[in-house]
Amino acid sequence: MQYRRGLKISDIGEDSFIDLVTKKLISGKDVIAAAGDDCAVIKNHSKDSYTLLKTDSIVESIHYLATDSPQAVGYKAMARAISDIAAMGGTPQHALVTLILDPKSKVPYLQSIYQGLSKAALKFKISIVGGETTRAGETSKNSITISMTGTVPKDQCCFRHKGKPGQLLYVTGRLGGSLKGKHLKFTPRLKEANWLVRKFKPNAMMDLSDGLASDLPKLAKASNCGYEIDLGALPRSRGSDIKSALSDGEDYELLFAISKLKRHALEKDWRKSFGNLKLTQIGALRSSDIHSPKLEGGWQHF
Amino acid sequence: MQYRRGLKISDIGEDSFIDLVTKKLISGKDVIAAAGDDCAVIKNHSKDSYTLLKTDSIVESIHYLATDSPQAVGYKAMARAISDIAAMGGTPQHALVTLILDPKSKVPYLQSIYQGLSKAALKFKISIVGGETTRAGETSKNSITISMTGTVPKDQCCFRHKGKPGQLLYVTGRLGGSLKGKHLKFTPRLKEANWLVRKFKPNAMMDLSDGLASDLPKLAKASNCGYEIDLGALPRSRGSDIKSALSDGEDYELLFAISKLKRHALEKDWRKSFGNLKLTQIGALRSSDIHSPKLEGGWQHF
Repeated sequence: MQYRRGLKISDIGEDSFIDLVTKKLISGKDVIAAAGDDCAVIKNHSKDSYTLLKTDSIVESIHYLATDSPQAVGYKAMARAISDIAAMGGTPQHALVTLILDPKSKVPYLQSIYQGLSKAALKFKISIVGGETTRAGETSKNSITISMTGTVPKDQCCFRHKGKPGQLLYVTGRLGGSLKGKHLKFTPRLKEANWLVRKFKPNAMMDLSDGLASDLPKLAKASNCGYEIDLGALPRSRGSDIKSALSDGEDYELLFAISKLKRHALEKDWRKSFGNLKLTQIGALRSSDIHSPKLEGGWQHF
Repeated sequence: MQYRRGLKISDIGEDSFIDLVTKKLISGKDVIAAAGDDCAVIKNHSKDSYTLLKTDSIVESIHYLATDSPQAVGYKAMARAISDIAAMGGTPQHALVTLILDPKSKVPYLQSIYQGLSKAALKFKISIVGGETTRAGETSKNSITISMTGTVPKDQCCFRHKGKPGQLLYVTGRLGGSLKGKHLKFTPRLKEANWLVRKFKPNAMMDLSDGLASDLPKLAKASNCGYEIDLGALPRSRGSDIKSALSDGEDYELLFAISKLKRHALEKDWRKSFGNLKLTQIGALRSSDIHSPKLEGGWQHF
């Protein structure tokens, strides 16, 4: 499809653009999943595991402010990619760090960003194995891109597209209000996701980065399902209303679909293992031919 | 080391910055080489090969112009990362594409960039397996970051740091004048590098991206050597003088160090295999305690 010459990316949005440019791509036979899930999934030399690949960026004035703590900014950049590896059921391994920088950036500020990156890497046992540092264009804002590898046992790899009508939808933690500070110091749900795929094998899972209003329809669509949602049941952060829980984004919680039959054991074992972290059933996947409620809001990249 | 508060990255330059932030990083035991070579080198499940990881960015107004052909820009972004994989003796496999974009970017322009990315991927049998598209800050220029994986047989992996005094230094092709157009349509020396590591096992190798004046001292330093260079012998592109051959950068040719004993066979077999591409001995590695000639120029990232 060729769009008219003057059309801007902000007119069509990120999702349409990605659909447009990625559907013609040709992949090798070793590629299990490419664009469209939290990570790319690749066969490797092991018969038991897949390799996961992810890239994710944060941009000054979009994802953080120049006045935010640089350690927290570095931590956030790394933690976002970890959250995506977790959402596949995987374990992060290596990271490459790309800094595109205003040449006027202060060295101690950049050192502090690296301290934040290293702190997250150390905490989650990731090796930072290299990267790229280059000059941003005139008047450009800084950006930090993290490329990450991970690994996942084949039988624990959890995609977005294997949900089935009738399965229950759960979210971890509480939603909304990320801008009050959580977006800079969240804990990616790595431990919880690893536990879930090992013990309960959800059928579909993703991390909530753009807000439930944007992300839930993505998971349902990938699984060729509709959905129903109990807005009153949404676990909300202190001071957040339903709208905020749906659309603030940057929750970095897990959303997953799982068989009804596992409900009782899941909820009981979760309480035993992660008593302080909420696990809430917020709805269910339905057949794609039902009318799913339209959810307003969610983060638009353009 | 803590730098004074007001110091800018443009005051210390990229290399000092990278040294500063990467030397404290802690790596896992599976990491053979991290920052400081063309790629990171990682152990994998195979007993015969290593995994290579690379990230590389191009920024509008720095590495290309808004008026350049967008297909050529996409091609260049991919080809630069391929050149780094080649310089390790490896074969590229998967790429992730990160676009940080001015929201006013035109969709057909971006489609053309993707066509260029895809063209390079197809030519070199790389699967584009995903990526990230995000909004640049206000008044920011577009950037394209490619993260690439590759593979290399263990006994063919060619680092920068294993050169020895007395070994001969060779470059492929001709140097200088990249801005006349070559920087947008070069052929990464993948075939030649693969041939070299298979047949002649150079001791040290890198690709020339910042210009020989900047890159040769890097290879020598990594190998803990000095060097001598025959400036008159430099293979120059049409219309380029010695200064230009030394310092224009973006040659994307190979520089390697190899035992004197292999000279005759290397030069003869090279002519047979790559008759149209020059291979030139430009000098030799020397003991680190000799005085190596200071080379002026080369690309400074900040």
